[in-house]
Amino acid sequence: MENITLAYYAAGAGALALLFALFTLSSILKEDMGTPKMREISEAVHEGAMAYLNRQYKTLIPFALIIFVLLWGAGYVYKAAPGSHLPVGPASALSFLVGAALSAVAGYIGMTSTTKSNARTAEAARSHGLSKALNVSFRAGAVMGLSVAGLGLLGVSVLYIIFGNPLIINSFAFGASAIAFFARVGGGIYTKAADVGADLVGKVEAGIPEDDPRNPAVIADNVGDNVGDTAGMGADLFESYAATTIAAMLIGNSLFGFPGIIFPLLVGAIGIIAAIIGTFFVRTSEDGNPQAALNVGLWVTNVLTAAGVFFLAKSIFVGDQAAIANGVFMAVLAGLIVNVLVGYLTEMYTGTGKAAVTRIAQASKSGPATNVIHGLAVGMESTFLPMVVFAAAIFFAFWSVNHAAMAGGVPADKAAEWAIYGIAMAAMGMLSSAGMVVAMDSFGPVADNAGGIAEMAELPPEVRVKTDKLDAVGNTTAAIAKGFAIGSAALTALALFSAYVEAVTHKFSQQLGGAKFVVDLTEPMVLVGVFIGGAVPFLVGSQTMRAVGEAAYGMVEEVRRQFREIPGLLEGKPGAKADYARCVDIATRSAISKMIAPGIVAVSAPILVGFILGAKALAGFLGGLTTVGVLLALFLANAGGAWDNAKKWIEQGNLGGKKSDPHKAAVVGDTVGDPCKDTSGPAMNPLIKVAGTISLILGPLLLRL
Amino acid sequence: MENITLAYYAAGAGALALLFALFTLSSILKEDMGTPKMREISEAVHEGAMAYLNRQYKTLIPFALIIFVLLWGAGYVYKAAPGSHLPVGPASALSFLVGAALSAVAGYIGMTSTTKSNARTAEAARSHGLSKALNVSFRAGAVMGLSVAGLGLLGVSVLYIIFGNPLIINSFAFGASAIAFFARVGGGIYTKAADVGADLVGKVEAGIPEDDPRNPAVIADNVGDNVGDTAGMGADLFESYAATTIAAMLIGNSLFGFPGIIFPLLVGAIGIIAAIIGTFFVRTSEDGNPQAALNVGLWVTNVLTAAGVFFLAKSIFVGDQAAIANGVFMAVLAGLIVNVLVGYLTEMYTGTGKAAVTRIAQASKSGPATNVIHGLAVGMESTFLPMVVFAAAIFFAFWSVNHAAMAGGVPADKAAEWAIYGIAMAAMGMLSSAGMVVAMDSFGPVADNAGGIAEMAELPPEVRVKTDKLDAVGNTTAAIAKGFAIGSAALTALALFSAYVEAVTHKFSQQLGGAKFVVDLTEPMVLVGVFIGGAVPFLVGSQTMRAVGEAAYGMVEEVRRQFREIPGLLEGKPGAKADYARCVDIATRSAISKMIAPGIVAVSAPILVGFILGAKALAGFLGGLTTVGVLLALFLANAGGAWDNAKKWIEQGNLGGKKSDPHKAAVVGDTVGDPCKDTSGPAMNPLIKVAGTISLILGPLLLRL
Repeated sequence: MENITLAYYAAGAGALALLFALFTLSSILKEDMGTPKMREISEAVHEGAMAYLNRQYKTLIPFALIIFVLLWGAGYVYKAAPGSHLPVGPASALSFLVGAALSAVAGYIGMTSTTKSNARTAEAARSHGLSKALNVSFRAGAVMGLSVAGLGLLGVSVLYIIFGNPLIINSFAFGASAIAFFARVGGGIYTKAADVGADLVGKVEAGIPEDDPRNPAVIADNVGDNVGDTAGMGADLFESYAATTIAAMLIGNSLFGFPGIIFPLLVGAIGIIAAIIGTFFVRTSEDGNPQAALNVGLWVTNVLTAAGVFFLAKSIFVGDQAAIANGVFMAVLAGLIVNVLVGYLTEMYTGTGKAAVTRIAQASKSGPATNVIHGLAVGMESTFLPMVVFAAAIFFAFWSVNHAAMAGGVPADKAAEWAIYGIAMAAMGMLSSAGMVVAMDSFGPVADNAGGIAEMAELPPEVRVKTDKLDAVGNTTAAIAKGFAIGSAALTALALFSAYVEAVTHKFSQQLGGAKFVVDLTEPMVLVGVFIGGAVPFLVGSQTMRAVGEAAYGMVEEVRRQFREIPGLLEGKPGAKADYARCVDIATRSAISKMIAPGIVAVSAPILVGFILGAKALAGFLGGLTTVGVLLALFLANAGGAWDNAKKWIEQGNLGGKKSDPHKAAVVGDTVGDPCKDTSGPAMNPLIKVAGTISLILGPLLLRL
Repeated sequence: MENITLAYYAAGAGALALLFALFTLSSILKEDMGTPKMREISEAVHEGAMAYLNRQYKTLIPFALIIFVLLWGAGYVYKAAPGSHLPVGPASALSFLVGAALSAVAGYIGMTSTTKSNARTAEAARSHGLSKALNVSFRAGAVMGLSVAGLGLLGVSVLYIIFGNPLIINSFAFGASAIAFFARVGGGIYTKAADVGADLVGKVEAGIPEDDPRNPAVIADNVGDNVGDTAGMGADLFESYAATTIAAMLIGNSLFGFPGIIFPLLVGAIGIIAAIIGTFFVRTSEDGNPQAALNVGLWVTNVLTAAGVFFLAKSIFVGDQAAIANGVFMAVLAGLIVNVLVGYLTEMYTGTGKAAVTRIAQASKSGPATNVIHGLAVGMESTFLPMVVFAAAIFFAFWSVNHAAMAGGVPADKAAEWAIYGIAMAAMGMLSSAGMVVAMDSFGPVADNAGGIAEMAELPPEVRVKTDKLDAVGNTTAAIAKGFAIGSAALTALALFSAYVEAVTHKFSQQLGGAKFVVDLTEPMVLVGVFIGGAVPFLVGSQTMRAVGEAAYGMVEEVRRQFREIPGLLEGKPGAKADYARCVDIATRSAISKMIAPGIVAVSAPILVGFILGAKALAGFLGGLTTVGVLLALFLANAGGAWDNAKKWIEQGNLGGKKSDPHKAAVVGDTVGDPCKDTSGPAMNPLIKVAGTISLILGPLLLRL
């Protein structure tokens, strides 16, 4: 059953999502932007964000072109055996560029949407109320979410239709990965340099409130919310989406032929249609709970996806393969359940008022040091249960395919081989709801920015109350999306790892005497790889954390300088105006310049290990990198989230409230947590995925086992 | 060549070291203790330390008895096949108790030595000068160092002579491990609760100097230096020593028979004799550099050991095995070189005045948050190069044995098998200098306490100058010893891992069809184990860090209470006396009660994984646990060390010196670093080793692959 029309369906679903996103965007742009002041601020944020994106992508062009040439050129150096393919050559080089370009396009569309919706959300809150404000801000997020999923599915499907082999288009995922790493790191440095700079001088030293127009870093701070949370997260999940789909197609191809290739594409199509339907369920009444509205949207999406995949599996896997249809469905379901559990666990460790968070707040009573110590402890503790959930999902996904196959009469060794597909399917299951999750995540910065605009444009306080309600929900959805991004990165990395093992088995089949490539932890080369791979996330974590420290330091100096040198600025005298553009420029320049070094480590480490130490060491490297990367991602994200909410809990009036000594201590913890949760932690996801996509290209090119 | 007399030589060397230690101790006790005030303080510290040790070991007795009974009883449940042995039964149960008891004995001897030498060191500095002060304090450390190595070698040798099989006496290492974990964690909680409590209220809130007798926590703080650095580190290295020796004997036995067993014992004997000789080279002139004197001692020990092992290898490995003599020597040498490199790297990231440390100090200018961010960054960065060194050592140790064997005409597959012995030999090489390293480490708390006594007993300031000179050296040797403890734990864990794989191969030989047990990272059960194993160090890190936070909080409350309720205490009125005993008691009680939970996790996790998920999952668990445990150990220890020295660098008068704003920020970082470097970080070493020793016992008992 090789029916290529099915791939057109997938491409169609991707195109549909994209059209729906663009249609939604144009409907948002028709909303009222409010007062001239609001419009002015919103435009400053939009311009800052676009300026950053332009500079970021422009900086990456030479880098992308070098890889493009290398991929193309490698096609002349390496020659595929007759009847087989290599992941290099003109088609792969082109796929790489398309992956990188579509990631950038998704970034531009999403960024336009969120930065053009902030004032409109504030205005909706002012003139219409909460319901309309949720509607505008969520639709803005949905534009981003559906662009990410739509472009991802469209790109993979069309390239597959053109080139007909998942191995050739694997560099589509590599292109997406490379961009994602820089977008995550650059965006993360930008957002935190601006945030820390604005807070340290503005709130702590000068004692002016958040989002006060006197603060010269305030626009940069609002831009940062967009380039970090929206563009960074979007690129991250675009990458997961592309990499998982292609890895699943590769594994599926070698195990099941065409059905194994087309199934992941159609799972993606079902997820996208479900997400579009889900967006219509996100509605709230004037005094309703926006969180509940978002949850309804997510559940509708998940349930529709599950139902669709159940029937899809039955109709794709037929004949000899019919045995595994149920198993594959269960694996996809496992991925969907991991979503829910990881979201729940994230909330348990970082939600305002949860035991872990109040413990940090209580520790603030004896000063900043004990606050930080308890925050580190919560972050560390929060890794354990999610890791157990991932481990259980791996086991269950494998087991369910294996079990279904055996029950259907497939011989044991073949069933065990087939079961590898289960892990890729769990990853697909998780990512099938990416459209909805990104929508929920991107809605946060819009609400946050809307609150900032309400403050700066001096709208009545009740407007701020409404946007604050949305902003609080945005913090929760951001935390859930972070857990989602980490979980999907973990499963994506495992899918890539399986595909890499397939590729190496194929490449060295003679040397292996026809046996499978075994990554044996007792072999010294594998151990060497594990040790080096395990250390890389710490190295990249260090580079990114230091980058924020240094960039923030530059911002602090600039804000101090403006307060010192611009007469009347701090006192708020009319006519004294902060030089926002300079702060935006500083954040942009330092983010761009400091994203290079970690990027070089991320891209070159797997290449060096693979070519110098060989295929076994690279396999160990991937194992160590994935395990440690996921752990650090959880640790950093959750510690940061918990510190943030401990501070918020005190600000709600507990332990003496704002300006009390515990609050000052909690502000220190929150500031420490900023680069953890928004720069170094998120950098781990693309780090482990970029290593996977590169290894998958390297696999067939390596010189020795 | 099965000449059991050789084992008597090893036992003799162990006994000699022990006698030398006791002789040295009695010679120290003849030194003058100084003024009655000095004697009084010293005795308070000694009593506090002994009270803690008594309570710690008493608490562990029921725990040890339960394991004793389980090990004995398991001998009835499991029956060894004819001609083979099991690591359970009466002999194993007895070995377990001996291991635990000897660890305790080493703790008591070492603790008596260091706590009885502090006033004597201060008095030596007062009446004789620096040279004599170094002599007393270093001899005190040497007592600990030689007790650890001597008892370790004596215990293993004698048990081997009695029971004749390394598998049976493997629980000697388990006994040492279990005690080490509690000693490390309990000691770590004690020392930091007292330290943080003393600093937060005394130095920060009340503004009185370090070691001021008005501070109620000052005695507890001095006790803490001993129970943490001396007893904890001693137990840690006693464990590494025992576990590595036994793992090497196990692997050696299965590969080479008797020569493979006796060689590690005799390497230990050579190391001990070399260390005894080395101690005589630690001498300094009055205006000399104590660090240089210690370095000479260490180099003499290392060179003598290397020379001795070279000839030993040639005479033990003869006939068929002669080919590997050179390779084995090179592997031991690799271990010795790792010592030097790791010490150098530790200094590079944590030494006062090094770039990494001044960077943290500079970041203190913008407040505590940026100080903490940069400290985290340094800690993360500092993991990378040591991991590369470990990886290189693994590779080189393996390669050198493999290469030597092949060059000597051994067939390739057999040479590869033999090469596993290389990793165990690298671990032995590293640990052969344990006597000297523990001596250098234990000297630190003596010098530190001597300074405290000089302060409290109001000796002339020039005495304090001399003890401060020694104390500064002590900080460096402590840092080197920490690197040593981590490195030896890593290599020990790998040796245990290899031995575990041997044990499982043997146990499931039928099921494996005679093939070797392969720990394949692509199998889901192995991955499940890796994920869970990787998360355990984070969990234990969290538990221990929180324990310090809570214990310190109790101490802070008590010190505040005493300042509030004891009239005239803070003002230093004559007759107003702090209640030191109460602070000692609080530290003791909280350390004992809070060491239980992490202990249960450490011991039960491998048992649960092994019995529920099977041998493959347990192998993955060990791999994940070791990699992540070593990374976290490096991260936490080096971050803490760097924060500490950044503060000290500011105190030397940089950036405004003491009491400046950067100094206040640096104090926050230092306090955060305290539990990192002295509790949670050090807990990682016994954590990974205890999992290894338990797995080695479990291996032959597991129910399924």
